[in-house]
Amino acid sequence: MSKKRVAIIGAGPSGTAQLRAFQSAAEKGAEIPEIVCFEKQDDWGGLWNYTWRTGLDEYGEPVHCSMYRYLWSNGPKEGLEFADYTFEEHFGKQIASYPPRAVLRDYILGRVEKAGVRDWVRFRHPVRWVTYREDTGKFRVTAEDLKAQKVYTEEFDHVICASGHFSTPNVPHFDGLDGFNGRVLHAHDFRDALEFKDKDILIIGTSYSAEDIGSQCWKYGCKSVTVSYRTAPMGFKWPDNWEEVPLLTRVEGNTCTFKDGSQKRVDAIILCTGYLHHFPFMDEPLKLRTANRLATADLYKGVVWNANPKLFYLGMQDQWFTFNMFDAQAWWVRDAILGRIEIPSDRAVLDADVTRRVAEEDASDDPIGYQGDYVKELIAETDYPSFDVDGACAAFYEWKTHKKQDIMGFRNNSYKSVMTGTMAPAHHTPWVDALDDSMEAYLRN
Amino acid sequence: MSKKRVAIIGAGPSGTAQLRAFQSAAEKGAEIPEIVCFEKQDDWGGLWNYTWRTGLDEYGEPVHCSMYRYLWSNGPKEGLEFADYTFEEHFGKQIASYPPRAVLRDYILGRVEKAGVRDWVRFRHPVRWVTYREDTGKFRVTAEDLKAQKVYTEEFDHVICASGHFSTPNVPHFDGLDGFNGRVLHAHDFRDALEFKDKDILIIGTSYSAEDIGSQCWKYGCKSVTVSYRTAPMGFKWPDNWEEVPLLTRVEGNTCTFKDGSQKRVDAIILCTGYLHHFPFMDEPLKLRTANRLATADLYKGVVWNANPKLFYLGMQDQWFTFNMFDAQAWWVRDAILGRIEIPSDRAVLDADVTRRVAEEDASDDPIGYQGDYVKELIAETDYPSFDVDGACAAFYEWKTHKKQDIMGFRNNSYKSVMTGTMAPAHHTPWVDALDDSMEAYLRN
Repeated sequence: MSKKRVAIIGAGPSGTAQLRAFQSAAEKGAEIPEIVCFEKQDDWGGLWNYTWRTGLDEYGEPVHCSMYRYLWSNGPKEGLEFADYTFEEHFGKQIASYPPRAVLRDYILGRVEKAGVRDWVRFRHPVRWVTYREDTGKFRVTAEDLKAQKVYTEEFDHVICASGHFSTPNVPHFDGLDGFNGRVLHAHDFRDALEFKDKDILIIGTSYSAEDIGSQCWKYGCKSVTVSYRTAPMGFKWPDNWEEVPLLTRVEGNTCTFKDGSQKRVDAIILCTGYLHHFPFMDEPLKLRTANRLATADLYKGVVWNANPKLFYLGMQDQWFTFNMFDAQAWWVRDAILGRIEIPSDRAVLDADVTRRVAEEDASDDPIGYQGDYVKELIAETDYPSFDVDGACAAFYEWKTHKKQDIMGFRNNSYKSVMTGTMAPAHHTPWVDALDDSMEAYLRN
Repeated sequence: MSKKRVAIIGAGPSGTAQLRAFQSAAEKGAEIPEIVCFEKQDDWGGLWNYTWRTGLDEYGEPVHCSMYRYLWSNGPKEGLEFADYTFEEHFGKQIASYPPRAVLRDYILGRVEKAGVRDWVRFRHPVRWVTYREDTGKFRVTAEDLKAQKVYTEEFDHVICASGHFSTPNVPHFDGLDGFNGRVLHAHDFRDALEFKDKDILIIGTSYSAEDIGSQCWKYGCKSVTVSYRTAPMGFKWPDNWEEVPLLTRVEGNTCTFKDGSQKRVDAIILCTGYLHHFPFMDEPLKLRTANRLATADLYKGVVWNANPKLFYLGMQDQWFTFNMFDAQAWWVRDAILGRIEIPSDRAVLDADVTRRVAEEDASDDPIGYQGDYVKELIAETDYPSFDVDGACAAFYEWKTHKKQDIMGFRNNSYKSVMTGTMAPAHHTPWVDALDDSMEAYLRN
């Protein structure tokens, strides 16, 4: 019997976790399937690769990057550390708790560089179309080799979709936007806060993008930040030139009118209105359609596609936990494919699992603990190194308190690694004064 | 035998020309195939639909629109008039020669509204994947109904790809762009010139987008326009705050350095660097890969896909002629499908036709006349109303002279319709002073 073939779609944090999971098993002597990872970009790292490009890239493909210059982690690194590859192992020392983008990217990729799995990835090979054929029991994955200008199709026994869900913007319309005399953009296209220096900016939304892009623009000298909320303000202790107003109802020229009748003249409107789960390359029977929540639709254990359990989705949950949750999922999916974990054959059992998770999330008033429990559940079923998940949750709870205390200063705090027990050092410069986000500057502790 | 089925991809100027071509035959008593037109947008009109959106739309699909506010035709309408539906028929009077976007859109769509073919179009149904099956001799077209959230596949005897080639930007990299402290955008994402009021802008490129977006920004009050060329400047008589410089070599902060060592501090960089022919939904054996030129690769008569003559591409040429050339092609393709025109069965004959066209374009020093001859060739083979193509060419030659004389004033000229013989009236306001681009304002003559 020939080797099983597994396709992984995407080489970002989830996809590379899957590569590492298989390599880890092989390292320990297991026989693993042939792995082919299809990646649209010319490097691995997914969202963590920065580009100045917006919209469509040099090959006409949608730009994956939603990150921007000067982005620093908005949560403590102690909540996302890999259990099998610590920050101390990577950097040779403990580092401060809120690293900028380039530092985190270096960390994530250090693990897979060490694992030596780069040649499992086909870069610049976007997936065009995935179908499943009942007669052969195989998936047909059609991809395009952009550099060779060639579309081709191959068969696989399993597909693992790890293409992310923070790259396709959710962009609502507001009355009068077609006549606005400035720039309207979604957070996905935000790149350099200096573009908005001395400008009055309007931000729509109250989630992480709104909070962080507003803070960035404030830090780099915008004139004022106005944040428009649908249901409730974020309610942090904002600086003086920052205000929160009800939902935008109308735009005329440069004047924005809000639900309470108040008005503000602004130079730019930044829609921080979230992202869509978007899988245009998936045939209908394989396509995940879910809201962005902790318990997704239609995925047994949060990863198995109920309608066809040979297909998996990684990282499709809304996220408190990130890198180590992707690991927990990737190790679990690996073991399901290797036959070490049995997926129930009764569809009703799979669906009941989803129903139960959804109900439990709905009933929970502690989303961090809820997702922590999910991570614990998965890692208990594989050989992923066990770690103090409750300790990671504690870092998240502390972080929330620190944000309430000082929204422009929370990144100056330090937390203890649950992997090594080491306390992170204080960073050498308060975040508001740290304008250089390079790795070199950050590691100078 | 059941009716033939024909899929048209796109309901822009080319796709709607094809709808009108079939409807025109039906009106004259011919039996026509079942027509299904797949359209990604929620209305027909293709590029002529304006949206404030850039990048990806509300469904996560690439935004088709490359047009911007205040866009006026950059060529005389007398070169693009439909032979079967004149401006006078549509507006009830002759109108001035360089209409704004909304006026031209109204004109194009007036013809298909009159034809009553709107229900042949499936709006918000992007095509995901097209293959051809040798065993059945049919195309399989997979599309997604975005509103119903359903992917489905249907079979067709013919496919006509009319999805355009001015929607996927060609975006080159320049050294240092990742560190630029302002906005970098491609012309495709340009929307409102007022965003650049009082700004120093750099434009890269020397073709129509560069010329027109620069002129727009100048007209609406930017501080200066710097245009960077690869081979040669456009050489028009530009205003005082406009200069042409050699190619950009490096960006540092806001400072741009050019090939001659000169430097300029700019607030925004607009890449007017053209578009890609991009058909990500086409399987390899069906995918057109061509440069943007008057004689395209691999299309017999400029429309028949040589490798599979049941597939057609419309409007894939670089363009002097537009709407009436799309008509000439659409009528020809219709007649090929209706069996009124025979496509040679010998592939070598098809390829020789392409080779000859390419050689003739290369040898020609009159691209307008070359494309005029192509239009003549096609309309001679169908019942599309014959018209004075040489007269249309004459309008183009005059237009070029008018641009040389006064680049900010050429739109104040008038030309004679080759369809009705009527001279266009002078517009009531010189273009530089006409800030209102609405249809109502334009028609007030």
